[in-house]
Amino acid sequence: MHLAVLLLASALPLTTLALDNGLMLTPPMGWLAWERFRCDIDCDNDPKNCISENLFIDMADRLFHDGWKELGYVYVNIDDCWASMERDKQGRLQADPKRFPGGILKLSRYMHDRGLKLGIYADMGTHTCGGYPGTPLDKIKIDAQTFADWEVDMLKFDGCYSDVMQQEQGYPLMSMALNATGRPIAYSCSWPAYQGGLPPKVNYTQLGEICNLWRNYGDIQDSWDSVLRIVDWFFENQDILSPSAGPGRWNDPDMLVIGDFGLSIDQSRSQMALWAIMAAPLYMSNDLRTISDQARVILQNKMAISISQDVLGVQGRRIVKEKSGIQVFWRPLSKNASALVFFSRRTDMPFRYKTSLSKLNYASGSYKVIDVFTNKSATLKDSTDFVVSVNPTGVVMWYVSAPAKLNPRLFYRGGQRQRSAHDLNTIFL
Amino acid sequence: MHLAVLLLASALPLTTLALDNGLMLTPPMGWLAWERFRCDIDCDNDPKNCISENLFIDMADRLFHDGWKELGYVYVNIDDCWASMERDKQGRLQADPKRFPGGILKLSRYMHDRGLKLGIYADMGTHTCGGYPGTPLDKIKIDAQTFADWEVDMLKFDGCYSDVMQQEQGYPLMSMALNATGRPIAYSCSWPAYQGGLPPKVNYTQLGEICNLWRNYGDIQDSWDSVLRIVDWFFENQDILSPSAGPGRWNDPDMLVIGDFGLSIDQSRSQMALWAIMAAPLYMSNDLRTISDQARVILQNKMAISISQDVLGVQGRRIVKEKSGIQVFWRPLSKNASALVFFSRRTDMPFRYKTSLSKLNYASGSYKVIDVFTNKSATLKDSTDFVVSVNPTGVVMWYVSAPAKLNPRLFYRGGQRQRSAHDLNTIFL
Repeated sequence: MHLAVLLLASALPLTTLALDNGLMLTPPMGWLAWERFRCDIDCDNDPKNCISENLFIDMADRLFHDGWKELGYVYVNIDDCWASMERDKQGRLQADPKRFPGGILKLSRYMHDRGLKLGIYADMGTHTCGGYPGTPLDKIKIDAQTFADWEVDMLKFDGCYSDVMQQEQGYPLMSMALNATGRPIAYSCSWPAYQGGLPPKVNYTQLGEICNLWRNYGDIQDSWDSVLRIVDWFFENQDILSPSAGPGRWNDPDMLVIGDFGLSIDQSRSQMALWAIMAAPLYMSNDLRTISDQARVILQNKMAISISQDVLGVQGRRIVKEKSGIQVFWRPLSKNASALVFFSRRTDMPFRYKTSLSKLNYASGSYKVIDVFTNKSATLKDSTDFVVSVNPTGVVMWYVSAPAKLNPRLFYRGGQRQRSAHDLNTIFL
Repeated sequence: MHLAVLLLASALPLTTLALDNGLMLTPPMGWLAWERFRCDIDCDNDPKNCISENLFIDMADRLFHDGWKELGYVYVNIDDCWASMERDKQGRLQADPKRFPGGILKLSRYMHDRGLKLGIYADMGTHTCGGYPGTPLDKIKIDAQTFADWEVDMLKFDGCYSDVMQQEQGYPLMSMALNATGRPIAYSCSWPAYQGGLPPKVNYTQLGEICNLWRNYGDIQDSWDSVLRIVDWFFENQDILSPSAGPGRWNDPDMLVIGDFGLSIDQSRSQMALWAIMAAPLYMSNDLRTISDQARVILQNKMAISISQDVLGVQGRRIVKEKSGIQVFWRPLSKNASALVFFSRRTDMPFRYKTSLSKLNYASGSYKVIDVFTNKSATLKDSTDFVVSVNPTGVVMWYVSAPAKLNPRLFYRGGQRQRSAHDLNTIFL
């Protein structure tokens, strides 16, 4: 306890400094073991799925060979249950020797050789949530140094088995300790999720200064109910959450469960679209060795990814909540563009939703819109009523180009003009 | 009211007679418009999806051309919103003239020419649930005769806009009236759903005598939550419901929503498996014009259908409910065979469930089991522990052949014997 107080004293100034590690200027993308593989350590009976170096090598191979890496999915993140139950003689964490015989450094090198990055997991507390050795206050420096020595690129720092006071000390301390190693290590803080996610308990200004991303809310599960609970919480609290996000500092609604067992195709598109609107980290937790083509197509959608990765880094908002169950979401993008998502909370049949861009607060002008999941495009005046058919639990997602002022002369000979999907901003210029 | 009382008096003896129309000795299979197409009557703006003769012709064409009919999916069922708002001068129901210009008889003939059957919908009450003309007590005879004149093969008789007394008179009366037409018309009663589904309000003995099938519970929606609510209700009340079912008389947990928007692939297999275990009617409500291959494969699974259609007609039961979230369901089949379903209520990852046939109350012997969705087979002694891996919200479904008594002499030379997937009952005989 005495040591903890000392550490707290030395850590306090840190909380007013920005986390200036230059990482994650757009939301990170990659793969994370937890939701899909949990704490399966039964390598004798379940060798393909247990938490072991083989699992992370398998996923790295898939990211590398199946087109994921080029799209930005570069992080391969270990979660809980990787460690040995005992620290080594020098007091350092060590990987379970049976399941990670090559150690973590071998995995880092394997990732780096392929242009990928390795993430690891620790817990601010006496134990991890799964009961493995935690990182109490007096172990923060040594664990940060161990991760740096292992050439790790990211740390997810969970918060089981610690109290409010310890977390208040430990999360900033770990930020400082990671920076002090000299190795750029992205820092994911579970802290706000343990504080209920909202001010005044959570200080989002401070979080932006010490963490690159943070979990605000409970763990996602492989079910549509779970996705909906998360979506509702994040958008009901958007006035607090959106301003706290930006390049290098992201709210994290947790993993993508697309490609697992619980979501339909429409629901999978909805998670992809809404996570992109939220500027959320895109960590898949699925089995990339057996993923269906339909799930792959959704996760590899280039336009959805480009919206997620927009350099402005603005977290979008829900702007309409209709009694019919239709909700509309909007995210401003660079180049004066924007993204729109029409989402149906209905459970009956496709709903024909009628609106116009001006009703959605767009300024007067003419806009080119591209449907993210069908690639169809159209040109719309702000005042033109249009109808989108939105499937139950599904979305329609649009990329909306910068407005062109209406020019009647060009407008009326539009039919003669060559158009392509690529001249977004020029169609009426 | 006077007329109603008179009719009641004449109907009373009926309630003790069996509905002896010889129909639906196995659970009916087909397609029903409601869940997917609801009361969409906007043919101007939504011509492909509105309730019109074109929709039923389209679905009949798909049943006929895409292999559904041969598998047993022969009913094409109209639901609410087909009728004109006015009865004709003779007091008869008539189809909406704009949406059904050829009338219902044209549709019946279209079905019969293709080996299909037509179902229609009416409502015991002043109005249908959608506000169209209902069938109050004094219209039951004329409406039954109209349906017979139209050569209809089935009637779903809903219960909006009537009270308990009227239903108690009307449902038996309609049964008698349909029989009196001389045309075999299968009879689906929504009555018990309006009575809460359970005795003492519901008299399942009487229902079996007057109806071929009956809706016990609320409408299904296009969501996994809705499927789960229905599954839970039916199996929690299995001691009441199972004995009431049998050839010609079926509990109806409502339509299959496989192929719509709300279920994952695993959840779709679960609905198919559990509806087969329940000896439930298999009415799809989806768009057969655009259904995915994955959904089609599940709905067209021959072994699941053969379990559903087993001639014993025994409604299966839940026999195990583990704390782990695994539940086991069992249905006895003809030829001393049976079906087993291992169902996971988990939302994390595939669960490795260990059990044995003897733990599932199987008698001692050796059994051949075939996995319904993978077609893999194995031979299992009752005492042998086995492990099934059950996906979150998914099932493993087995067809279990009749037991062969253990014969050591044959057992030990089993490896030399020719085996095929077809000699189910002879593998050790």
